[in-house]
Parts: sequence; structure tokens; C-alpha cells
Amino acid sequence: MKFTLAANDVQSSARAGVLHTAHGDIETPIFMPVGTAGSVKAVHQRELENDIHAQIILGNTYHLYLRPGTELLERAGGLHKFNGWQKPILTDSGGYQVYSLGHNRKITEEGVIFKSHIDGSKHTFTPERVMDIERSIGADIIMAFDECTPYPCDYSYAKESMHMTHRWLKRCVERVNTTEPLYGYEQALFPIIQGSVYKDLREQSAEFIASQNQWGNAIGGLSVGEPHEDMYAMTSLVCGILPKDKPRYLMGVGTPENILECIALGIDMFDCVMPTRNARNGMLFTTQGIINIRNEKWKDDLSSIDEELGGYVSTFHSKAYLRHLIINKEILGAQIASIHNLTFYLWLVKEARKQILTGTFAAWKDVMVKKVSSRL
Amino acid sequence: MKFTLAANDVQSSARAGVLHTAHGDIETPIFMPVGTAGSVKAVHQRELENDIHAQIILGNTYHLYLRPGTELLERAGGLHKFNGWQKPILTDSGGYQVYSLGHNRKITEEGVIFKSHIDGSKHTFTPERVMDIERSIGADIIMAFDECTPYPCDYSYAKESMHMTHRWLKRCVERVNTTEPLYGYEQALFPIIQGSVYKDLREQSAEFIASQNQWGNAIGGLSVGEPHEDMYAMTSLVCGILPKDKPRYLMGVGTPENILECIALGIDMFDCVMPTRNARNGMLFTTQGIINIRNEKWKDDLSSIDEELGGYVSTFHSKAYLRHLIINKEILGAQIASIHNLTFYLWLVKEARKQILTGTFAAWKDVMVKKVSSRL
Repeated sequence: MKFTLAANDVQSSARAGVLHTAHGDIETPIFMPVGTAGSVKAVHQRELENDIHAQIILGNTYHLYLRPGTELLERAGGLHKFNGWQKPILTDSGGYQVYSLGHNRKITEEGVIFKSHIDGSKHTFTPERVMDIERSIGADIIMAFDECTPYPCDYSYAKESMHMTHRWLKRCVERVNTTEPLYGYEQALFPIIQGSVYKDLREQSAEFIASQNQWGNAIGGLSVGEPHEDMYAMTSLVCGILPKDKPRYLMGVGTPENILECIALGIDMFDCVMPTRNARNGMLFTTQGIINIRNEKWKDDLSSIDEELGGYVSTFHSKAYLRHLIINKEILGAQIASIHNLTFYLWLVKEARKQILTGTFAAWKDVMVKKVSSRL
Repeated sequence: MKFTLAANDVQSSARAGVLHTAHGDIETPIFMPVGTAGSVKAVHQRELENDIHAQIILGNTYHLYLRPGTELLERAGGLHKFNGWQKPILTDSGGYQVYSLGHNRKITEEGVIFKSHIDGSKHTFTPERVMDIERSIGADIIMAFDECTPYPCDYSYAKESMHMTHRWLKRCVERVNTTEPLYGYEQALFPIIQGSVYKDLREQSAEFIASQNQWGNAIGGLSVGEPHEDMYAMTSLVCGILPKDKPRYLMGVGTPENILECIALGIDMFDCVMPTRNARNGMLFTTQGIINIRNEKWKDDLSSIDEELGGYVSTFHSKAYLRHLIINKEILGAQIASIHNLTFYLWLVKEARKQILTGTFAAWKDVMVKKVSSRL
């Protein structure tokens, strides 16, 4: 894997780059649609490619480990072969999902013992085991196994947890260094910074993570309920510490506004379930602002979903038709809204990249943040 | 509307024809995907056209009347404009849905008073009102308002009901003859034969319906739970009475086997929710037979869903991947299975048409019935 920077914005810390992987190039800043269990919900693979113009998608290690399981994934030749997505894939480490299980998991130095949300069966994730699972899945970018602390989180817990995440990282690095990819192409490990909303912890963590000299670096434990100001402050802080020549991935973020603000702080990669999850509930992100399509005001609106955005679903269908589908719980409503929202997210980061390249990002960002966060 | 016969099979009553409508030609025999509330469930309009090769779809008057309602449909310029399907559409009359409401409806000579399944609100469908609603929807083919009798149904009820359906038909014809289409193109009325499984009633009904000299003729009240032998016997009986130069539509039928058998009896048009509804539960109709993709036996099967059928979803995705999606209740599973099943249904009627045109239908049909009804 190789990361080349194409431009640095002069008025902000925004960067435009290209991440080269065995499954193709990724132009950054980029948004990565979430394909939880090997499918981006309600979206066909060809729609991801042709309509949404996704360049990389996510897979969730926790979900893929439980189903279909590593045995079938290996038999298929990895997730790319299994789900037919031939462009880059990134897998998380299961840390976030396991943390979400609440009382159904127990964290020790060795790893995490948890109960499956599907059948209650008991499983253990250790840093070594997770690296092995990510080898079986075969993503181009594999995330280190971490503990994602909740918000709020008291200082002493956040500190202890951060140190454990660092110790786990060393075990992840060791495992990756002593094993080979299963499918003949490179897998790049990204370590994850933790430290909750505590400046000194985030600094320590960023320095430790940077010192590991891996392919890229990620920021975890944000967008878990803290105020946006804290998210921005922590992101800004660690971006000042992380090496400039490696991609930076802010995990689980966020709204269009969050993404633009964090691009300005120096983030290159984002993922979030928001565009697909909210789509299924009728919330649309458009070039003109946010629409709750369930509102009565859209009932008779026969104008396109988003003329300016372009693309098949956003111009072919009217707001009134999409509202009708969503209100009627028609699956097609979820499909159209999901494609639309993802198309918008990918358009947004592409536009941001263009503006960075032409040196007009900062001013454009201020205008866009207002526009895309307004409620229509 | 015009119906031209291209070939009559010599060894059966099968026919191949072309139904010309304002929105394009329909090659018969044809299967019509059901687009209940203005959407074929889990299928994009462009997939209907490009993958499934649907030539005509159905809309349900009952559902469309309740939501989005005739006011919005008229404002949009009819259902074609509202949902973006520019090829022919047929609407049922709501008779079947109203009959399905059970205790929530009351049938009188004037019409049916029923409670909405959505909010319990009270509505009245009369033959005149239904014709007006079908004018608002603007389908190319509009079905007469009938009573669909249940199975079993005692003789006296079936007889009375049939006569009422006939009286309602006269009112439908009168209404259609004294009103104009709203959107500048022709709408063809199809009356519906009733009479349950009673030969003398079906004969009477077929003769009465034929005497109305409408654009086409339909057979209702079958595929409601009666043995297949009764369905075939009634279909055969009425096909012997109905004029040869008009299309014949067997409503709500059925399995691939039913369709092939009824093509042999002289049916030109079919509709059924089975390919889409069963798809969502993981039942696949394939060129090799019927697959319950949820079965353990498909878990590791990395072969295509249906190589012989061809088409994107059926060859791009493996059985194991589709099983994984269906088991995980991923929406994409419903999408892939629905496209696959509809592609298969449209392929089946197209193949039947080819065989009729080349005079090889009867022998082919016997082989195919066994093949497509076998359980894999």
C-alpha cells in the first residue's frame, strides 16, 4: 500500500491524496459505505460502483465472523470473492461491536469473551484471533483490535483502557508480522488511537500509535455521544501529532457537517452507518439540506429527490413517490433512499477533494456546512 | 388496444400473440409482476426493464386508492408518471383485496363498504367508483369490479355472487362508456368470470362475459385454495367458450407449473405475488427446479444462483452468498431473490412463446413442468 499526497490546503489542515491498494486506488478524502455483513444494506454491488461511485467499503469483523464465518469466507477466497465487490475493502476489528454488546461481554487483558447477539453462544476475541479473522476475511485494510470506551468515561478507566489498547496493538502487530495474507495480496494494518475526550491521553495515544509506524492511523472512541466540539478538539489534537505522509481515518463519523469539519482538520477517511440507516427511516441528505421525507410537506412534491446531485434514483424519482414508498414501508423506498444518501456522501467528499486541489476548500467548506446541515 | 395472434399450438390450446397498447406491445403468453402500491417489492424500475424484461406490471386499485390516493395520482398524471414505469400497466379492481378483508367489509348490491387495513377508516367501492379510481390511476388495462368468492363456497352463494358480479359488470361497462380516460390514452376494460368450481356457473359466466364484447377477458376466483385439478378444469372449460381473438387473463396464478399448464389450456396472461413474496422468504424458482435457499445444503455452495438462466443477479452471486443474506435478513437478499425469481418467470413465458411459435410447445411443456416443479 502506498499513500501519496496530491495537495495540502493552505487555509486548513485538509489534504487530498491517493491511497494505492491491491484492489485499486482510493482518492482521499473518502467516505466508506458500511457493508456490515458483506452487504451494504439495500444496495446492489453494481449500484455501489456505478451509481454511488464508492471506492472502498467496510466489512464488520464481528458480524462476518459470526456469519458466514471464516471457514466459508476462506473457501470462497475471501470477502471480495464472496460478495463480488472487487474494489478495496476495510474491516474493523470488532472492538466497537463487542463494546456495544454491554453486559454480554467481559474484557480482560487477554481479550474479550462475548455472547453472540444471534444465538447467545460464547466466543473469545483476542488481538491474535482478530488478526487471524481479518486475514480470513481478506480486506485490504485491517484495523487493530482495540477497546472503544463509552462516553462519558471516567479518566482512570479511559487511561487504563488506552494502555491496554496499546498493549493489544503490539500483539496485533506481532501477529500480522508473523503471518501471511491468505489470498496473495497485501493487507495493511491500521492502529487505533483511544483516550476518550482527555487531551493528555489522546496525545499519549497518538504518539504511541504514530511510533508503531504502520500503514495508516485511525482515531477511535469518538462519535459515541460526546459533544461535537470535543470530537473536533480531539481530532485536531491528534492530527497535529500523526505523521503527514500516512492516511488518517476517523472511525464512525458522521454527519455531512462532521465530515467537512474533520476534513478541514486533516482527516482522510470516514465511515458511518448514518447515510444508510437514516435512509431507511426516511431521512435524506441532499445538496440543499436535510429532508425528513415522511413529513406531510413532501406529500405532493413531484420534483426530483435531488436534481443538483444527479444520478439515477435522485433524478428519476420524485419526493412524493419516495415519500409514498417510505410511508408504505416498501423495500424500494429503503433502496432509493440508501442509494441517494450514499451518492450524496460520495459526492460531498469528491467535491471537497476538488476544492482542496484548487485551493478553495476553506471558503467552500463554510458555505457547504451551512447548506448541508440546514433542515428543509 | 389490439390483440393479434401469431400462432396456435396444434397439440394444445396454447397461443402466442401480441397485445398492442398505448404504452407498448406485450408478447403473450406473459407474466405480469405485481406492483401492489406502485412498486414491485424490492425491485427498481430499471431492473424490471433491463434485468427482468417485464413487459407489463400490475397495480392494486385497493392499495393505490388508500395510498397515495387518486388526488396525488391525478396530479402526477397517472401511475406511469408517478412511479416512472413507462410500459403497460394493468390494475385490478380491488375486488380480491376487499374480499380478503374478511369481517372488515360488507357486500351489498350497491357495492362494498370496507374498513381500511391501514387506519380502520370506512370506504365504499361501487362498480362506478372503482371505474373512476381506475381512470385516475390510468392503467392501460382496467379490471371490472367483481366479487371474488372464497374456496370452498357453497353453490347457492357462488351462483348469487356470480349474478351480482355480472350486474356489477354492466354498471362498470356503462361507467367506462360514459367517461373518458384522463391522460389521453386508451384504457381497456377486462370483465371477470366467476362461478367458483361449479361447471354450470363457470359456463354461464363465461358466456355472459364473452357476450359483453370487451377488449379481453379474465378468469377470477381461482387459485384461492381449490385443488389444481379444479383450477385446470375450470380454466379449460371457460377457454373453450371465450372468443379466440381476445386475450385471456387468469388472475392470481401461480406456480411455474400452473403457468405452463394453463398456457396449454389457452391462457395468455398471468399475475401472481409468488415469485416476489416467496423470494423474500428464500424460495427460488430456477431453471433446474425449486430451491429453499435457507436449507443447510446450500451453505457452502459457491456456484451461481442459476447459471442457465443468465442475467446479472443469477450469475453474479453464489447460492452461498444469497443464503447468507437471506439468513441475515439483509434487504439485499430480498432484492436479489426477487429479481432472480421474476427473471425466471419472464424467461419461462418467453420460452413457452418460442416453443409455441416453433410448434414444439406440448412436448417441451411436459419436460419443463417436471423440471421446474422438482425440489432441489
